[in-house]
Amino acid sequence: MHILVTNDDGVQAPGLLALAQEMRKLGKVTVFAPDKNWSASGHVKTLDKPLRVRETVLADGSSAFTSDGAPSDCVALPLLGLVDEEVDLVVSGINPNANIGHDVTYSGTVTAAMEAVITGVRGIAVSLDSPEGHTGPLDYSTSAIVGRRVAEQVIADGLPEGVVLNVNVPYLKENELKGYMITRQGLRVYRDALDSRLDPRGKPYYWIGGDFPTGVDEPGTDFGALRAGYVSVTPLQLDLTNYKAMDVLKKWKF
Amino acid sequence: MHILVTNDDGVQAPGLLALAQEMRKLGKVTVFAPDKNWSASGHVKTLDKPLRVRETVLADGSSAFTSDGAPSDCVALPLLGLVDEEVDLVVSGINPNANIGHDVTYSGTVTAAMEAVITGVRGIAVSLDSPEGHTGPLDYSTSAIVGRRVAEQVIADGLPEGVVLNVNVPYLKENELKGYMITRQGLRVYRDALDSRLDPRGKPYYWIGGDFPTGVDEPGTDFGALRAGYVSVTPLQLDLTNYKAMDVLKKWKF
Repeated sequence: MHILVTNDDGVQAPGLLALAQEMRKLGKVTVFAPDKNWSASGHVKTLDKPLRVRETVLADGSSAFTSDGAPSDCVALPLLGLVDEEVDLVVSGINPNANIGHDVTYSGTVTAAMEAVITGVRGIAVSLDSPEGHTGPLDYSTSAIVGRRVAEQVIADGLPEGVVLNVNVPYLKENELKGYMITRQGLRVYRDALDSRLDPRGKPYYWIGGDFPTGVDEPGTDFGALRAGYVSVTPLQLDLTNYKAMDVLKKWKF
Repeated sequence: MHILVTNDDGVQAPGLLALAQEMRKLGKVTVFAPDKNWSASGHVKTLDKPLRVRETVLADGSSAFTSDGAPSDCVALPLLGLVDEEVDLVVSGINPNANIGHDVTYSGTVTAAMEAVITGVRGIAVSLDSPEGHTGPLDYSTSAIVGRRVAEQVIADGLPEGVVLNVNVPYLKENELKGYMITRQGLRVYRDALDSRLDPRGKPYYWIGGDFPTGVDEPGTDFGALRAGYVSVTPLQLDLTNYKAMDVLKKWKF
């Protein structure tokens, strides 16, 4: 079992290290992650410039690859052959914030796992639902164990064709978890606001500011599961077609 | 009717101008587009740095806004209030290449329209299926007219909740079009290959190279419609849940 571990926060992020260490219990691990933070970067394929790859060392002394490409590039490069040994599973994370609702369309963590699935390799994204306003180091121990357990299931039972697993873990001790819930993508509520400022030279600049996003607390959703203390496991697909809407649009006369 | 026109190729791209000119026939148009090319950039939200906005002039002498943000930022900023007048419709394009199959997860053109829909505004992405290997200026006249016709339909009949319209136009004269087809997202076949090179100092660098992507030519898909000479209109959604897979995963024992 050869597992590729990546993320969107950069190769030195503590969540990546925690994940890689747990994955080593399941087989050989190759870490290949961006050399900078790509949060909220979406699904990127770098075609207009060449990429550099270098070896680096994680905080536990293990070796890793890093690249100036995006998270999806850090999956594409090894799967295209930059790493000799064939990859059986890609696990992305651990993201320090939940990736739920519409977040999945922005998330570099999730799109790295999508890139794997597009290439025909199983992909799992793992994110930690850390508390809003948390300061200091996050405890990734529960989420790393959960990531390993989900990976064990995927290795044992496989995944339906084209499915990307999106795993979100409550910020709890392992024995406080209520269990695992298979969920659907819920509704994220963004509370972005325009924050207009003037620079020291009197020229305007703009932050996308506002409040931390919340969600609609519905049972059966990713957000609902986290709220209730469950690990949320959502099977995502890459077919975005709204089949019901097709019937509506077919009545259009052009 | 106030229409926001954006793209992922940059504010001076000819496809944007062609689209803006046709949209002016339907109402007031505001152009707000990135100051650089963001192709294959995915769905980006710029939260870690402030954005600049400046006014610029398009090739026809009309005024436009441009920003150092991504395509989705160029939608978020005006919808968050940077433009006074409320926006009724966002149209993104015209992309100089088709956005079909899995392309929709990478496409800055499509994710700009997604950003609108997440914010509660209707969103349409328009792309031109230009021939592989085409050199010289592209003719956007047919695709611009098609974009306007689709926008007219959306203005007249609305769109089902949460739907992003993904429109792809064959590279044909208007009178050569076979018609409009409501399609599902097809399967893209990527033919990426790793292209390893040495720089003048003997150090390796890597291109994601290979051949232009193709697709699986199935009837009813975006790719199939374009192949048959039809405009492809695909309703996309932002719920990526694979509901069938939920039943499979619910049998897992953690």
